[in-house]
Amino acid sequence: MRTAEGIDFTVLGARIDSALDRWLPLESAEPQSIHRAMRYSVFAGGKRIRPLLCLSAAEAVRPGAEGVEDAACALEFIHTYSLIHDDLPALDNDDLRRGRPTSHKVFGEAMAILAGDALLTLAFEVLAKLPFATAETSAALTLELATASGTVGGMIGGQVHDIEGEGRAPDAKTLERIHRAKTGALLRCAVRMGAIYAGASAEELAALTAYGEHLGLAFQIVDDVLDVEQSSEALGKTAGKDAAQGKITFPAVYGLTVSRAMAMAEFAAALAALRPLGDRASRLEAIARLVVERKA
Amino acid sequence: MRTAEGIDFTVLGARIDSALDRWLPLESAEPQSIHRAMRYSVFAGGKRIRPLLCLSAAEAVRPGAEGVEDAACALEFIHTYSLIHDDLPALDNDDLRRGRPTSHKVFGEAMAILAGDALLTLAFEVLAKLPFATAETSAALTLELATASGTVGGMIGGQVHDIEGEGRAPDAKTLERIHRAKTGALLRCAVRMGAIYAGASAEELAALTAYGEHLGLAFQIVDDVLDVEQSSEALGKTAGKDAAQGKITFPAVYGLTVSRAMAMAEFAAALAALRPLGDRASRLEAIARLVVERKA
Repeated sequence: MRTAEGIDFTVLGARIDSALDRWLPLESAEPQSIHRAMRYSVFAGGKRIRPLLCLSAAEAVRPGAEGVEDAACALEFIHTYSLIHDDLPALDNDDLRRGRPTSHKVFGEAMAILAGDALLTLAFEVLAKLPFATAETSAALTLELATASGTVGGMIGGQVHDIEGEGRAPDAKTLERIHRAKTGALLRCAVRMGAIYAGASAEELAALTAYGEHLGLAFQIVDDVLDVEQSSEALGKTAGKDAAQGKITFPAVYGLTVSRAMAMAEFAAALAALRPLGDRASRLEAIARLVVERKA
Repeated sequence: MRTAEGIDFTVLGARIDSALDRWLPLESAEPQSIHRAMRYSVFAGGKRIRPLLCLSAAEAVRPGAEGVEDAACALEFIHTYSLIHDDLPALDNDDLRRGRPTSHKVFGEAMAILAGDALLTLAFEVLAKLPFATAETSAALTLELATASGTVGGMIGGQVHDIEGEGRAPDAKTLERIHRAKTGALLRCAVRMGAIYAGASAEELAALTAYGEHLGLAFQIVDDVLDVEQSSEALGKTAGKDAAQGKITFPAVYGLTVSRAMAMAEFAAALAALRPLGDRASRLEAIARLVVERKA
C-alpha cells in the first residue's frame, strides 16, 4: 500500500518480514512442530503496526539507524504470543484470527501454549543478540519491552483487568485503565524502542512517547468500533465478540458516535505531539492515518 | 538443612526468598489477582535448586559477588512459569504440585496461563534491571537464559519432544535428547549464569558448565526414579504419572537398578569437573550430593 504522503509501507513490511524470518528458527529445525506453529502465527497476515512504529520512530530520530528492524521483531514476537494465548479456549476462545484458524485449532492447545511461550522467550533472545546495538541499548530495550508486556500497567495487567471486567457495568475509568495497559502499553513501547534504539534526546523521546500514547488510544477505540460495525469476514476474526462477552468497550461506554469522535481527537493529539520533529515524522503521521482509517 | 560439609542452605534459601519477594509485585498492586497467583506458585515450597546453583557457582568464581541473588531470581521465575504451564489441563493436567493444588485449580486456567506469562516476562525484566551488574553482563545473562529456555536445545524444545514422545517405544537417544533440553538446559544455565555474573575465566566457565551438565542429567534420572519409587504424598505431586502417560523415562529404558547406577556415575562426573576449582566449589559439591540423595 502507498499512502497519500507517498510512503511505501510494502517495502518496509518486506524488510520487517525478512528480519522476522531470519530470527525465527527454520521449520526444519528440531522440534519442527513448534517451529511450524511459531511461523504459522507470525506469518498470518498481521499488519506489523508495532514494527512499523518502531522503524518509523527510529527514522524520525536518526534516519538510517542500522539494524532497528531486529529490535522491531521482538515487538512482533510479543504481540503474536499475546494473540495466541488470548485466543485459547480458557481465555477468549476464538477459532478465527486474521481469517485463518487460530493456533490451538491447528496445532492443539498444548502446542499453542508452548508456541506462545517460545515467541515470548525469543523476543528477549533477539534483544540480547542485537547485532548493531551496544549492551546499554540492548538492556534499555529489554527493560522497555518487559515493562510494557508485564502486569503493572503493561499488557498482561490489561488482559487481567479485561477478563475481570467482563459482565460488569461499563465505566469510563476502568475502560481507560484496561486499554492503556492492554493495547496502549505495547504500541507506546514500539515507538519508544525505535526512539531509544536511534539514540533519541530526552525531548525527542518525550514527544514520541506522547505520540505513542495518543495513537495507542486511537487504535483501541477504532478496534472497539470495528468490532461493532464490521462483519467477521471483513475483520478476519469473530465480530461482535466484545458485546457477546460483556466486555467494557468504548462503544459500550460512550456509544458509537462519541467513540468515533474520540478516536479522531486522539489522532489529532498524536499528530500535534509530532510537531517538534518536523518532516522526519511524516511516516509516523502516515501510520496514525492508517490506524484511524482502517476498516479491519 | 545443614549438610555433612557444614554448609547451611537455610541461610542461602532465606537470601533467595527475600530477593524473590523484592522482585515480585506486591499482592496489593493492581491487578491483585495475578500478583496473588504469581506469588502463590513462587512461594509454594520449591527447593530453589536453580538459584542455589547460581549463587554457589558465583561463589566458586568470586566469593561475595554482590547482587548475584537478583540474577538467581530470574532462573526461579522461569522455572516456576514452566511448572505452572506444564501442569495445565492441555499439558500434564496435574492437580497437585509440591503438595498443594496447582495454579489452575486455585485461580482458574486463564489466570494460570497469564501468571506463567507474567513470570516469564518478569525474569527478563529482572535481568535488565540488575542493580550491581554492567549492561554487558546483563545482556550476556539474558542471552543465556533465553537460549536455555527456548525451543532449540532449550526447555521448551525438551517439553515438545517429551509430549511428542508419549506412547512411543522408549529409546536411549530420544531419552537423552529430551532430558538434556527439558531439565538439563536450565540447570546448566543456572551454573553458567552464576559463573558469568562473577566474571569467570574461560577455564572456570568450562569446568562449571561440565559440572552443570552432569548434575542436570543426575537430577533428571533421580526424578524419574523417584516417580516410580515414591508415593504421591512423599513427592508432593502425583506419583507414577510418567508410566501412566507412557513417557520415555530412564527407568523405562534402563530399568531401576541401572538408572540408579547412572545417576551415581553422573554425580561422580559432576564432582570430577569441579576439581580445578578446589575448595571454592565445596558448596556445589554439597548441592550435587543433595540432588542425588533427595527423596522427593
